[in-house]
Amino acid sequence: MQSCDTLLFAEIIVTQNESRSIIYNGGIAVSEGKIVCVDTADAVRSQYTSENTMELGNSLLMPGLINSHTHAAMTLLRGVADDLPLMDWLNDHIFPVEQNLTAEQVELGALLACAEMTRYGTTSFCDMYLIEDATYKAVDQSGLRVLGGEGLFVFPSPAYPDFETGIKLVREMEAKWRGNARIRQAVMPHAVYTTTPEILTTCREVAEELDLPLHIHLAETPAETKACLESFGKRPVEYAHSLGLLSERTTVAHAVDLTDDEISLLAETGTNVAHNPESNMKLASGMAPIQKMLAKGVNVTLGTDGAASNNALNMFTEMASCAFMHKVQLLDPTAATAQSVLDMATCNGARSMGQADLGSLVEGKQADIIAIDLTQPNLLPMHNPVSQLVYATNGAEVHMSMVAGEVLYQDGKYLKIDYPALIEAAKDVAKWVQKKIQKRS
Amino acid sequence: MQSCDTLLFAEIIVTQNESRSIIYNGGIAVSEGKIVCVDTADAVRSQYTSENTMELGNSLLMPGLINSHTHAAMTLLRGVADDLPLMDWLNDHIFPVEQNLTAEQVELGALLACAEMTRYGTTSFCDMYLIEDATYKAVDQSGLRVLGGEGLFVFPSPAYPDFETGIKLVREMEAKWRGNARIRQAVMPHAVYTTTPEILTTCREVAEELDLPLHIHLAETPAETKACLESFGKRPVEYAHSLGLLSERTTVAHAVDLTDDEISLLAETGTNVAHNPESNMKLASGMAPIQKMLAKGVNVTLGTDGAASNNALNMFTEMASCAFMHKVQLLDPTAATAQSVLDMATCNGARSMGQADLGSLVEGKQADIIAIDLTQPNLLPMHNPVSQLVYATNGAEVHMSMVAGEVLYQDGKYLKIDYPALIEAAKDVAKWVQKKIQKRS
Ligand SMILES: [Zn+2]
Ligand SMILES: [Zn+2]
Repeated sequence: MQSCDTLLFAEIIVTQNESRSIIYNGGIAVSEGKIVCVDTADAVRSQYTSENTMELGNSLLMPGLINSHTHAAMTLLRGVADDLPLMDWLNDHIFPVEQNLTAEQVELGALLACAEMTRYGTTSFCDMYLIEDATYKAVDQSGLRVLGGEGLFVFPSPAYPDFETGIKLVREMEAKWRGNARIRQAVMPHAVYTTTPEILTTCREVAEELDLPLHIHLAETPAETKACLESFGKRPVEYAHSLGLLSERTTVAHAVDLTDDEISLLAETGTNVAHNPESNMKLASGMAPIQKMLAKGVNVTLGTDGAASNNALNMFTEMASCAFMHKVQLLDPTAATAQSVLDMATCNGARSMGQADLGSLVEGKQADIIAIDLTQPNLLPMHNPVSQLVYATNGAEVHMSMVAGEVLYQDGKYLKIDYPALIEAAKDVAKWVQKKIQKRS
Repeated sequence: MQSCDTLLFAEIIVTQNESRSIIYNGGIAVSEGKIVCVDTADAVRSQYTSENTMELGNSLLMPGLINSHTHAAMTLLRGVADDLPLMDWLNDHIFPVEQNLTAEQVELGALLACAEMTRYGTTSFCDMYLIEDATYKAVDQSGLRVLGGEGLFVFPSPAYPDFETGIKLVREMEAKWRGNARIRQAVMPHAVYTTTPEILTTCREVAEELDLPLHIHLAETPAETKACLESFGKRPVEYAHSLGLLSERTTVAHAVDLTDDEISLLAETGTNVAHNPESNMKLASGMAPIQKMLAKGVNVTLGTDGAASNNALNMFTEMASCAFMHKVQLLDPTAATAQSVLDMATCNGARSMGQADLGSLVEGKQADIIAIDLTQPNLLPMHNPVSQLVYATNGAEVHMSMVAGEVLYQDGKYLKIDYPALIEAAKDVAKWVQKKIQKRS
C-alpha cells in the first residue's frame, strides 16, 4: 500500500485518455499535484491510502475544461450592450469603458471571471486583455491556470503609450511571472487590423526569442478580410503567413472567414485554431468551417471569448452550441460529434496552450479535475456520459473543481476567493461602468 | 392593511407586463393562487401583510417560463442516440423503445421531465406523446401546468390499435381531466406524414366541437415537404390550410421549411408557431425564418422539443440558442433581441396555449413565479436584467419555482416529488431502455 495526498472515487470517470476510456466505479490517486493512478475504485483502493479521501458517489470525474480564448476582465461589461451593430457596440459601449480601466478594475473583472469559470468547470484558460498583469494577480489568487498576454495594438492602451513600451512590458511581465507553474505567458498582438506588419514581425521575433506561444484574433469576419485586403493586399491568413506568424507556436482565435486554401495552410503550418461559436453567432460574424479544419488535421480548440459577446464563460453550454451550430451549418446531424467537441474543450485545448500535461486524466498528468453531480434531473437517466456532458449538462452540476490537486470550489463554496466581498465589489463597479457609458452616449 | 396568502420580495422583478416594466426592490402579493399586487416593495408592504413572507433578497422574480413544444416522457431516451442520420436514429433507437413503452414508464419519464423543468424555471409546457394520460398523472403530482394531447397517428400506438380508437381516447381523456385548472388538453395529430387527410379533418372537427387547441408538427424539414408534395400534391403548410387546420386555435411546431407566402398564410390565419431552435440545429433540420414570421405578426413561441433531440428541457439555454441562431442566420447582430426572445418564452407561449392569465406578473394573473439567484458569478455584475436572463443565465440559478401560488421547488428541494425515489427509478429504466435498443441493433 502506498500513501498519496488525495483519493477521489466516483461512479463514472471520463478520462479523455488516448483511447477515450470511461471507467465505471472509478478512482483517482493524486500526489504532489499530479495524478498517480486512474483505475477502477477497487484497483485504486487496493494500492493507495490517503488521509484525504473524497467519496463522491453518484458523480462523474473528468478533466477540467480548457477555455482557449477569452478576455476575463470583460465580465465587467457583461450585458451592458447587446443586439447592436458591431461599430455602435464597440464605439459607444465597449471602448469608452476600456479606455478608462484601472489595474484594480481589471483585477476585479478577472477575479469575477475566475469565480465563474471555477464554478462551471473550467480550470485553464487562454486570456488576452489590457493590463494583463492585473489579470495574473486574480488568477494567482483564484488557483486557476492561465496562458495570458498583454493585448498589443498600434495605438495606446491603458497599459502603455505606444507599442515599443508595450512589447517592453511583455518582456518585463515574462520575467516577473517566469517559473510560475500556473501562470504562463504568450505574445498577443490583438489582430491584423489593430497592428502593423512591423508590430506583427516584432511579436513573432519576441515569441521565438523567449520561446513563448503566440495568440492573435484572425479572420473573424468578412469585414476584417476586406479591410486586410485594402490595407495589406492580402487576406488575413495569407497576410499572417507572409509575416511568418503561422506555426505550431501560434493559436488564431475565430478563423471564421477562410478559403479552402487557407484551411490547408493552417493545417500544414500546424497552427492551432480557437473556435468561439457563441461569440461568432451573437456578433453575427459567421460560422467557422470547423469540420473542414478537423478533416484536414487542424488542432481546433474551444473558447467562450469575453463576457461582452457571449455573455457567459461557460464551457459546457459552449460545447452544446458548438455541436448545434455545426450540425445546422452543414445540415448534417453527424457533424461535430459529442466526442469531437469534448476533445476540443480538453485535450486539443491543452495542446494549443503547449501543455501536454493537461486535458486528460492520465497517470503523470496534472490533477486538474472536476466533479459533476449526476443526480441533477437533466442528467437522468444516464445512457451515455459523453453525450450527457456535451448536450445535457449546463455546468452548474459541477460541485468540485480542483487544479494541481488543490480544491478551488466545492459544494457552493470557494476555497481561495472571498466570494461575498466579490459580490459587493461587482455592485460598485457596475455603477462606474454605467456612468462611463452614459457620459459617452 | 389587507392580508394575503404569500408575499415575495426581491431586488428585481421582470414583470413582462404590457410595457415590459422592471421593478427594482419589488414585491408581489399572492392570494388564492393569483397575483393581487405587483409593485415596489415599499408599496406592497404598506398595503399587504401575510403569515407567509418570502424575503428573497438578491434575487430576480419573473414569470415561470413556458415550454411550447416538448415530449416530456422522452427524457427516458436522453442521450441513447446522438450524431446519427435521422432514419437510423428513429428506426434503430427511438422507435424500438417507444413501441414497447408502458403507462408506468411514460409516467416515470414525464415525472423526470417535470422535475427538470421545475428545477430550471419552466412552469407550463405543451406536450404531445404516447399514453398521454400517464403524463397527466405525472404533471398532476408535480404541480406544473400542461397543455397535453395524445399523439395521433394513422398506425397503431401503445395507447390505441387504430385512429378511431385513438380519437375516442382523446374524448375520454378530455372528459376525465375536464375542469382541472392545471391539466388542459388539445387535439394533437402527430404530423402530415404520419396521418391522412381524413384523420386531420376529424382532428379539426373534434377540436372545434370540444373547443380545444390543436397542435401538430409541421414543415420541420425539406424531406417532409418533399414527401408531402408526393403524397398530397401540396407543401405542408398549404396542405394543412386546405384541410382548415390553420387558425388561432392551432400551434404548429417547427415551421422550418417555409416560403414567404406560407409565412403570410400563418400570419393571416393567426396560427401560432412553436419554434425549437436546439432540436432543429441538433437534428440538422434547418433554421426557421423566425424574424420574417415576427415581422409579419406571427405569434412565435419557444420550445425545447423532447430530450432525445436537444438533450435538455432547459428554456434558459434555449433562449440563448434562439438568439444566437437567428443572429448568425441573418448575419445581423440586431436580430432576435433579448426582449423578443424572452417574450417568446413567456407571454407569446401563454397566448398560444390559450391561457391569457399566464406569462406575465400582473394583478389578476396566475401566480406562476420563479426566483433567480443573482449572486451566481455568471450574473455579476448586473447591468441589464433581460440581457442577463437570455444570454448569461443557465437555469440552475432558479432557486424557487411556484405555480398558482404553490411552491414546487426551493433551495434544492422538491416539495411535491419524491426526488430520491425518482433517481433510483431512473437507474432501473435506463437498463430496460438499453436492452430494447441492443435487441434491435
Ligand atoms: Zn476575442
Ligand atoms: Zn416534437
